[in-house]
Amino acid sequence: MNGAESLVRTLVNAGVEVCFSNPGTSEMHFVTALDKVEGMRAILGLFEGAVTGMADGYGRMAEKPAATLLHLGPGLANGLANLHNARRASTPIVNIVGDHATHHAQYDAPLASDIMGFARPVSGWLHSSNSPKTVAADGARAVQAAMQAPGQIATLVLPADTAWLDAEHAAPALPVPGPAAVSGEAVDAAAKALKNGRKTAILVRGQALKEEGLTAAGRIAAASGARIMCDTFAPRLQRGAGRVAIERIPYFAEDIVTSLADIEQLILVGAKPPVSFFAYPGKPSWCTPEGTDIIYLAHAHEDGVAALDAVAQAIAAPKEPANVAPLQKPDLPQAGAALDQFTAGQIIGHFLPDNAIISDEAATSGIGAAIATTNAAPHDHLSLTGGAIGQGLPLATGAAVACPDRKVVCLHGDGGAMYTLQALWTQAREKLDVTNVIFANRSYAILNIELMRVGAENPGPKALSMLDLHNPELKWVEIGQGMGVESVRVETVEDFADAFSSAMKQKGPRLIEVMI
Amino acid sequence: MNGAESLVRTLVNAGVEVCFSNPGTSEMHFVTALDKVEGMRAILGLFEGAVTGMADGYGRMAEKPAATLLHLGPGLANGLANLHNARRASTPIVNIVGDHATHHAQYDAPLASDIMGFARPVSGWLHSSNSPKTVAADGARAVQAAMQAPGQIATLVLPADTAWLDAEHAAPALPVPGPAAVSGEAVDAAAKALKNGRKTAILVRGQALKEEGLTAAGRIAAASGARIMCDTFAPRLQRGAGRVAIERIPYFAEDIVTSLADIEQLILVGAKPPVSFFAYPGKPSWCTPEGTDIIYLAHAHEDGVAALDAVAQAIAAPKEPANVAPLQKPDLPQAGAALDQFTAGQIIGHFLPDNAIISDEAATSGIGAAIATTNAAPHDHLSLTGGAIGQGLPLATGAAVACPDRKVVCLHGDGGAMYTLQALWTQAREKLDVTNVIFANRSYAILNIELMRVGAENPGPKALSMLDLHNPELKWVEIGQGMGVESVRVETVEDFADAFSSAMKQKGPRLIEVMI
Repeated sequence: MNGAESLVRTLVNAGVEVCFSNPGTSEMHFVTALDKVEGMRAILGLFEGAVTGMADGYGRMAEKPAATLLHLGPGLANGLANLHNARRASTPIVNIVGDHATHHAQYDAPLASDIMGFARPVSGWLHSSNSPKTVAADGARAVQAAMQAPGQIATLVLPADTAWLDAEHAAPALPVPGPAAVSGEAVDAAAKALKNGRKTAILVRGQALKEEGLTAAGRIAAASGARIMCDTFAPRLQRGAGRVAIERIPYFAEDIVTSLADIEQLILVGAKPPVSFFAYPGKPSWCTPEGTDIIYLAHAHEDGVAALDAVAQAIAAPKEPANVAPLQKPDLPQAGAALDQFTAGQIIGHFLPDNAIISDEAATSGIGAAIATTNAAPHDHLSLTGGAIGQGLPLATGAAVACPDRKVVCLHGDGGAMYTLQALWTQAREKLDVTNVIFANRSYAILNIELMRVGAENPGPKALSMLDLHNPELKWVEIGQGMGVESVRVETVEDFADAFSSAMKQKGPRLIEVMI
Repeated sequence: MNGAESLVRTLVNAGVEVCFSNPGTSEMHFVTALDKVEGMRAILGLFEGAVTGMADGYGRMAEKPAATLLHLGPGLANGLANLHNARRASTPIVNIVGDHATHHAQYDAPLASDIMGFARPVSGWLHSSNSPKTVAADGARAVQAAMQAPGQIATLVLPADTAWLDAEHAAPALPVPGPAAVSGEAVDAAAKALKNGRKTAILVRGQALKEEGLTAAGRIAAASGARIMCDTFAPRLQRGAGRVAIERIPYFAEDIVTSLADIEQLILVGAKPPVSFFAYPGKPSWCTPEGTDIIYLAHAHEDGVAALDAVAQAIAAPKEPANVAPLQKPDLPQAGAALDQFTAGQIIGHFLPDNAIISDEAATSGIGAAIATTNAAPHDHLSLTGGAIGQGLPLATGAAVACPDRKVVCLHGDGGAMYTLQALWTQAREKLDVTNVIFANRSYAILNIELMRVGAENPGPKALSMLDLHNPELKWVEIGQGMGVESVRVETVEDFADAFSSAMKQKGPRLIEVMI
């Protein structure tokens, strides 16, 4: 057994089942080891930004890491933007980054670069294995690190000779401690605050945004009247009919301020106090009202679900949560209604099947669907956590790998979708059940708004042309078909309803370009 | 005038004429400043890997930096792989990377990341401007640093408040010292060596691979019988009819060893001793024969052209260089001949117009064209300097911006072309005169070779599937048309000859998918 095989066996021992890959010469021994070991699925992406985004989508849904296989510094570099998003999502990922053989490093060959330097800003755990005798143990440590609550990116650099030289054996999986328990004091402080009569919001992030945590939060709301909120960009939120509906913090700073204006105390469960996404001249970045009492019930690495349960018990909350969303699928838009994000949202909410997964990078076109799915069938909503556009298509792809029995719907702006469009090819290759809805407004629409908001006044033609994607028009149907995905363009609500409902009924990848 | 405007004015003062851009909210003041200042062309790329590759192509041809405009850490991260290639090419580039306002950094908003950490591995000069009063001066320093011989990447991080707050004035351009003079001792040592009767190769890189340096090297060859060689992946090489033909070092280590087997002394002009691109088990990375005397005539930052001239004079070389390539355009392949890289190469060599620029990332399909263009019309050849695939399309795009009167031909493998295909859209938008030839072998063909060479034996179906792009087949015509580029697929030599000759006669972007 060589080092590569000992590593693959170790990863499989530790529960890693999928390797999203874009290998090169230095990773060939790892690649051939994939055939020697049972239990590791290899999925090729034609660009590393697609590869890492898939690993993020997989990790958010599977709640354990996929591996990525990346080719030296540049391969890793291509994946960094989506690793940035994954870092913000606290997604467990194990990156395996091939490197030159240890004895080759001294020659500074063309592909040599500072791999550790590239990796450091996104990696919670980072190590280079310089011996085939230790790489199995390093792999076990990487998985353990990735699974450390709330989840993080572990990057293991694998020099080619570490992979090809003889190893001894695979390593056993290391124990993964769950999230830390919150202290009784923290529970007591939150429970006490909830009974003091002041206006309270509970801001939730992480595992507690799944059904169990939401139910506990809803029970607290029923007992105390507290508002239950989540970040604008929560990594994963369970919502829709039957779930406790939660307020999403608005995107713009002044809207956050308005939304929180009457709050006197803020209880944090795995979250941080909300701040504005960008800074704006003369506007505050800090959005919580002055004088608000901020209470940390659970930190991100602590067990937010248990904390909410404990608080619910401490305040003798009723068994039934407040704010449970009834099933009220939106009506279809009237015939002849204009096709826009709101009518498109109605159609999406109307036809969304039970237990779908929404990968949402629709940016300015996403509000319609967000509203219309509040009381739609229950679903998981995955958002753009780090602001690095180009997450949506690969995230959907990885989620579909993790959950082959669930429909995945990707809602995407056209500007962002161009970043990692290579993910469409992987959807076609793996026959993944993803419906990609591209909102084609032919612009970086958010920037037209931001241009004014940042006070960049009197934009001239050059400035405006930097936000405009009309010249030439992107043709998403051609692009999708070029990568093997059945694709259609729709310009009316009727055509979108037909295309979307058809896609919901059939398995396999689809692309719908929505002209708005 | 705000900080952004003071910076743009400074860049223009220093001779920067083009800004390849993919801006976001934090760069909006820089974007609006582009309209307030004469002399800076703004070119939008729909992905930062395309943006930085364009800046590389521009810089190699214009011999001065373009600016890039990138959106925080993730925007920079997306551009790193092609910045790695540009670093290996010693291309002058000034990256302007927007950042959050200085007072916003403390809040660790979603898009915050370690920008300096991302930038460090590729940047020869790196600085963050934390005041609008200093940003103009910093911009001047960045341009000066980028132009430092032989050229390097300068990265200036621009916090949003540095851009939007009041500045005082632009900064004047700083002096750019040319390359350093080589010492008389170095010239004497080389001249002496060339007269000692030992078998000698001169390995040349950088400016000396242009006509003047090649002529000097050819004169030395005429006097001494020395072989004149260049790296496998030279950033820019002038070749074709009328130029001194130069031996290109082979790609594979054992071929390098064979090629250099009879060499007793190696004179380096801006180059390093050749090493293997990757390490292979049991094979040496160092390829120069043991006992070879290595003589550094000019280091990369020194004036290699003057050094070669001085040596030619010192050895009283004749005026006429040896090895001048005669014009011998290849014949067209016979009717009915199979379409492969060799017949395709003949067609390219036959129709290549005078003074064309070839952006070459054809990998395993590039040998045919390389052979067939040796005696074709004079042209510049730009190669993949850092091994990070996805350079070719944006490099061609940037070269076309730098040289609007010259035909640019991009030769590309299909695997690598998928990485930064967004460059096609910019070619269409800017109506650039680029003919993109995609060699569609539906595989990472080089890896099928490397798999065996690295001794990764008995590859199974999973391993082989990681190298295979057949399922589904990429349709480059659809992809090209989806981005606004006139595209055609050819399967015969006749069809390729028609398509390529037509493209050579007309201006504007074209894509030809060559089925091989």
